[in-house]
Amino acid sequence: MSDAQVVKLEFDPKNMPFRRLGLSGLRVPLFSLGGWLTLGGTVVGDPVKDIIKTAFDAGINMFDTAEAYAAGKSELEMGRVIKELGLRRTDLIITTKLFWGLRKGPNDGGLSRKHIIEGTQESLARLGLDYVDVIFAHRPDNTVPMEEVVRAFNYVIEKGWAFYWATSEWSAREIEEAYHVADKLGLIGPIAEQCQHNMFHRERPEQEYEPLYKKYGLGTTVWSPLASGLLTGKYNEGIPPNSRLATEPMFKSTVKSLQQDEGKEKIRKVRELTKLAHEELQTTPAALALAWLAKNPNTSTVILGATSPEQVTENLKALEVLPKLTDEILEKIERILGNKPAPPPTYGRPSLDRFGRL
Amino acid sequence: MSDAQVVKLEFDPKNMPFRRLGLSGLRVPLFSLGGWLTLGGTVVGDPVKDIIKTAFDAGINMFDTAEAYAAGKSELEMGRVIKELGLRRTDLIITTKLFWGLRKGPNDGGLSRKHIIEGTQESLARLGLDYVDVIFAHRPDNTVPMEEVVRAFNYVIEKGWAFYWATSEWSAREIEEAYHVADKLGLIGPIAEQCQHNMFHRERPEQEYEPLYKKYGLGTTVWSPLASGLLTGKYNEGIPPNSRLATEPMFKSTVKSLQQDEGKEKIRKVRELTKLAHEELQTTPAALALAWLAKNPNTSTVILGATSPEQVTENLKALEVLPKLTDEILEKIERILGNKPAPPPTYGRPSLDRFGRL
Amino acid sequence: MSDAQVVKLEFDPKNMPFRRLGLSGLRVPLFSLGGWLTLGGTVVGDPVKDIIKTAFDAGINMFDTAEAYAAGKSELEMGRVIKELGLRRTDLIITTKLFWGLRKGPNDGGLSRKHIIEGTQESLARLGLDYVDVIFAHRPDNTVPMEEVVRAFNYVIEKGWAFYWATSEWSAREIEEAYHVADKLGLIGPIAEQCQHNMFHRERPEQEYEPLYKKYGLGTTVWSPLASGLLTGKYNEGIPPNSRLATEPMFKSTVKSLQQDEGKEKIRKVRELTKLAHEELQTTPAALALAWLAKNPNTSTVILGATSPEQVTENLKALEVLPKLTDEILEKIERILGNKPAPPPTYGRPSLDRFGRL
Amino acid sequence: MSDAQVVKLEFDPKNMPFRRLGLSGLRVPLFSLGGWLTLGGTVVGDPVKDIIKTAFDAGINMFDTAEAYAAGKSELEMGRVIKELGLRRTDLIITTKLFWGLRKGPNDGGLSRKHIIEGTQESLARLGLDYVDVIFAHRPDNTVPMEEVVRAFNYVIEKGWAFYWATSEWSAREIEEAYHVADKLGLIGPIAEQCQHNMFHRERPEQEYEPLYKKYGLGTTVWSPLASGLLTGKYNEGIPPNSRLATEPMFKSTVKSLQQDEGKEKIRKVRELTKLAHEELQTTPAALALAWLAKNPNTSTVILGATSPEQVTENLKALEVLPKLTDEILEKIERILGNKPAPPPTYGRPSLDRFGRL
Repeated sequence: MSDAQVVKLEFDPKNMPFRRLGLSGLRVPLFSLGGWLTLGGTVVGDPVKDIIKTAFDAGINMFDTAEAYAAGKSELEMGRVIKELGLRRTDLIITTKLFWGLRKGPNDGGLSRKHIIEGTQESLARLGLDYVDVIFAHRPDNTVPMEEVVRAFNYVIEKGWAFYWATSEWSAREIEEAYHVADKLGLIGPIAEQCQHNMFHRERPEQEYEPLYKKYGLGTTVWSPLASGLLTGKYNEGIPPNSRLATEPMFKSTVKSLQQDEGKEKIRKVRELTKLAHEELQTTPAALALAWLAKNPNTSTVILGATSPEQVTENLKALEVLPKLTDEILEKIERILGNKPAPPPTYGRPSLDRFGRL
Repeated sequence: MSDAQVVKLEFDPKNMPFRRLGLSGLRVPLFSLGGWLTLGGTVVGDPVKDIIKTAFDAGINMFDTAEAYAAGKSELEMGRVIKELGLRRTDLIITTKLFWGLRKGPNDGGLSRKHIIEGTQESLARLGLDYVDVIFAHRPDNTVPMEEVVRAFNYVIEKGWAFYWATSEWSAREIEEAYHVADKLGLIGPIAEQCQHNMFHRERPEQEYEPLYKKYGLGTTVWSPLASGLLTGKYNEGIPPNSRLATEPMFKSTVKSLQQDEGKEKIRKVRELTKLAHEELQTTPAALALAWLAKNPNTSTVILGATSPEQVTENLKALEVLPKLTDEILEKIERILGNKPAPPPTYGRPSLDRFGRL
Repeated sequence: MSDAQVVKLEFDPKNMPFRRLGLSGLRVPLFSLGGWLTLGGTVVGDPVKDIIKTAFDAGINMFDTAEAYAAGKSELEMGRVIKELGLRRTDLIITTKLFWGLRKGPNDGGLSRKHIIEGTQESLARLGLDYVDVIFAHRPDNTVPMEEVVRAFNYVIEKGWAFYWATSEWSAREIEEAYHVADKLGLIGPIAEQCQHNMFHRERPEQEYEPLYKKYGLGTTVWSPLASGLLTGKYNEGIPPNSRLATEPMFKSTVKSLQQDEGKEKIRKVRELTKLAHEELQTTPAALALAWLAKNPNTSTVILGATSPEQVTENLKALEVLPKLTDEILEKIERILGNKPAPPPTYGRPSLDRFGRL
Repeated sequence: MSDAQVVKLEFDPKNMPFRRLGLSGLRVPLFSLGGWLTLGGTVVGDPVKDIIKTAFDAGINMFDTAEAYAAGKSELEMGRVIKELGLRRTDLIITTKLFWGLRKGPNDGGLSRKHIIEGTQESLARLGLDYVDVIFAHRPDNTVPMEEVVRAFNYVIEKGWAFYWATSEWSAREIEEAYHVADKLGLIGPIAEQCQHNMFHRERPEQEYEPLYKKYGLGTTVWSPLASGLLTGKYNEGIPPNSRLATEPMFKSTVKSLQQDEGKEKIRKVRELTKLAHEELQTTPAALALAWLAKNPNTSTVILGATSPEQVTENLKALEVLPKLTDEILEKIERILGNKPAPPPTYGRPSLDRFGRL
């Protein structure tokens, strides 16, 4: 694709379903695109443009990045491509995240007022944008009072640098505390949590956050939906020498864990899921794993990673799998996984159904 | 049944389903018993005891009355019977309502602080109880500031005279204002609305209150579930000379309306419902009409009226009908009624499903 | 009128009465001019300038538009004309409305923070203005938390993009909730409601909003004062083939309803009103209908539509009718209409007069 | 011991250390006595008196019970003995807990306002007391709004029925929410958490609650300090046929787990701890395990269970072990246990020491 082909795109959501991000008024596509590891990192230049254009044409108008992704290059690449593609800002949902600053000074990171305000401005500068739609606290910071964190994100919103703020990898207690502070001070609380969620990582999103979904309508933007690629089935017969797991140093511990009992057990399960996907759903295990997350009503959007336009298209097959996930199929998946988090205890008291009925 | 037969009853909810009253912690039986017109009015003495004992034995442990019912005699009779039956207070849910005081002075009624506090004490005295579980504002009073109303009901609760307060026949705006005031002042807001709801009276409970169910979890305690008996089918062939409608002066306008086009149309519909009840559900139109209300997830409890123990038992047949109300049957009922309130408008904007999905 | 004729006009309200918009400090002319359907739609170019100049010269200095009117062209035309006429900004009251965005994306409309902020900026760009006087939520959006809506309109005001915000076609409960949130968070609440009000559409403005007028001094900016032209009497003898009703597809259902019993009854009433206007007031039925709205103390301004300067002048005859609307005449109108909404019920309690007297 | 021997005891705390219960002003003995399973259950009559007198004489003036313990008999026995021993109320700290009511009705339990208020009154009646010092929510109840729970416990305190309220087995998020609501409404929040804590149950008290200790000074009253007796070493050579574990049906799953790999591993560790206790500290493993809990600065009091006066005396040997728990010994214990919960993550950010220093 040459620059000559670039036109002012009209956003057409096509068959992409949209959900509200938490209780907010923002409507996000069920699948979004994330820059983690790939955009600006292992992928740079024209391929980034191809990936983003392919995603946008397929109804993915939400792009997630972070100051820390590829040490700022993810934001730079994403900003450059949006400009070159001539995409309208109002058609897009751009999100970024603050926590690990690019430099190593003691104040160059975390959630201090200093870093939130300075970091947001630097992120916007790299993106070449006046504002992002959502700004995330990339991790909790227990060395900063929650009041300082909430006040700083409110400052960012009141400055017009973001419309909403959200959390990532915070505990339920920490999110509760953020609501506490926001509510008490009449400030804006977080609308969503960017959490790791996949078939092998379920406890926090499916159990710990449960009361937050019910009480505050917390939304989730899911990362690592394929468990670092494990759920694609590509490690079913061992770790290929040129795969990300084999080559990226940060996955060393993942590789090691796959060679232990627990890891072998996971691969055994992925083989069974692969069989289920092929035989009963005529699809790939990756599409099945993505659709399974999308089926969860608490999921607002599943963030896809991609190193090529083909991978985007491939992953979006999950949309075709979604309607095939009958109660029967879901039951079979649970039987293979055997790791469904227990529902909240009722301590012997008669529990109620979702209508509050005994 | 003689006094000799009275024993200290152990409450056994049997097959009675319970629901939370709104979002509160109070669990109310799906069917409760109300004293309007009957208990202390057309029914007095031992028959009241028989009715209440029959209800209690069937799992109905919630009894609703009001200062205005039979000019205070409903409370007197109910209080007397509870004592004589030796029912444990903790096993019971007793509710009363304030608005129309027993005397005619300018301050003897309405929702002034004076009447709420004086009236509650008088109701408790008639009931012979230290507290009721829920006290209702029997009607809105637009001549009293909402702040005065909310403060007075909070006073009643803090005094230990009631555990909760609720409204009856308030508009959605009025209930919203009560939440507004309670929220702003850190006071307790209402948990439920005692509303008229039946197959011929649907707009307010099914449309106007819809946002209150969603936003604040408002519960409902439904009155007039059988539309003054119309839905029992007993007027299908005309108004019998000795029926309540024929004899009670307060129903004069009801009788008149039944003789006009709109009323005739209603009776035609009841005939069709009767046919549906008999032929497809092997039940009575009354049981069908009651089960139809109980099926609604926003209904907390349906208040039954009864002039005999047999009528209680008869009405509870609705519990057997409940599981038979399939989507298909519900669809048939809607086709007969033809009065389903429109859902809230979306003004051409893509609407969302119950998970907030487009 | 050529550009040469354009002079810097001094605003001279002449005989135009002004009223406060709700309890706000803004004083609006009793009659204002709206762009719906006409300006930028059926009327473009110089005629728009003629209409606006005529209105302005007659004391109408308030012009109402919306992002959705003629898909943005209404704002463009109005902005262009104001500039070309060289009107002083301080002499003008310009209002616009947000809800239906011009594009079709899932975030391109409604009352999310994203659309309110992005939409306001786009409206101002089309108008060529730094700010509007009042920005309206063109409809309620029940998929956005009220807190988000109120915060976003406050942001718009704090940015200097509008002086006030208001609602349009919101239910009393929704307006109450907006006050609730604004009051709780110490933010600015809406000052007025742009509601449909005319002799055949009375329940919401004359009954449902009644407590909002009394409690919060809600103002109204009335649209469709002539019931799509019905009250001009021009359909008294049938729908002329070249009239708006006959030609605009959006009025198809209106036309149909006029051919049914209810519609015929309305036309019968308009004929009687026409007679009353001609014989007792020596005016047109349109002027009578407009004056009748202006007479209502809860009306802040009546928004006129016009396709020609003459129509503006014609409609302003209502100002002459206003003093002729004696109690006797108003009584006659009520007798013809027979649709006066019932006052709020007192439930048998002695009601109070408007000074709070029994 | 006969009634004749009963004298009005003066409380003499001797060598018992006292700690504040959380940040409250209440000072609790480092070891307290609990009625769970024993008092009123497996132990009744005079032995209860002997146990309580022995404890009191040894400086234990805090006695913990619950409505559910021995179905109300624990409260009855404790109340009777306190009266018979003629203990001064002011010398005592009496705590009870609400959640599992004695009857089976839908409102007979949980944390509804109804049960908290009715249940407290019934507990006080059984105890024969006007008030307890602390009333605990024995479990969380996610079917009751936190606002209702906090308001009801505040009501109990304002009525004079308790001086403080606290939680038991609540998640950090739930406790956080309770502080949230209390703070927002200006009400009294919980001061402590009665949590299971012992060498084999560490994650919640040592990790999950960590921020609550730091932020709100949460206190703990520790139950099951000896892991159902496992840490006494009495199961080192297998489960004796007449032990509680062998005979109580509620411990069936515990027994089973001890026979599996994880359980065998635990017993292996207890054997090592026994060796450490005997050889290096000249004490019992039980005293070591209790002292280890008492050493933890977040522990307010360790609740002992006892079936005989001797067991009380035996357990209090922990007080002698306490000063012997040097950093070196604690390190050895950690090496044996190998289950120290990880400190909160810092996500690569430089962490701070306890004085907030880098």
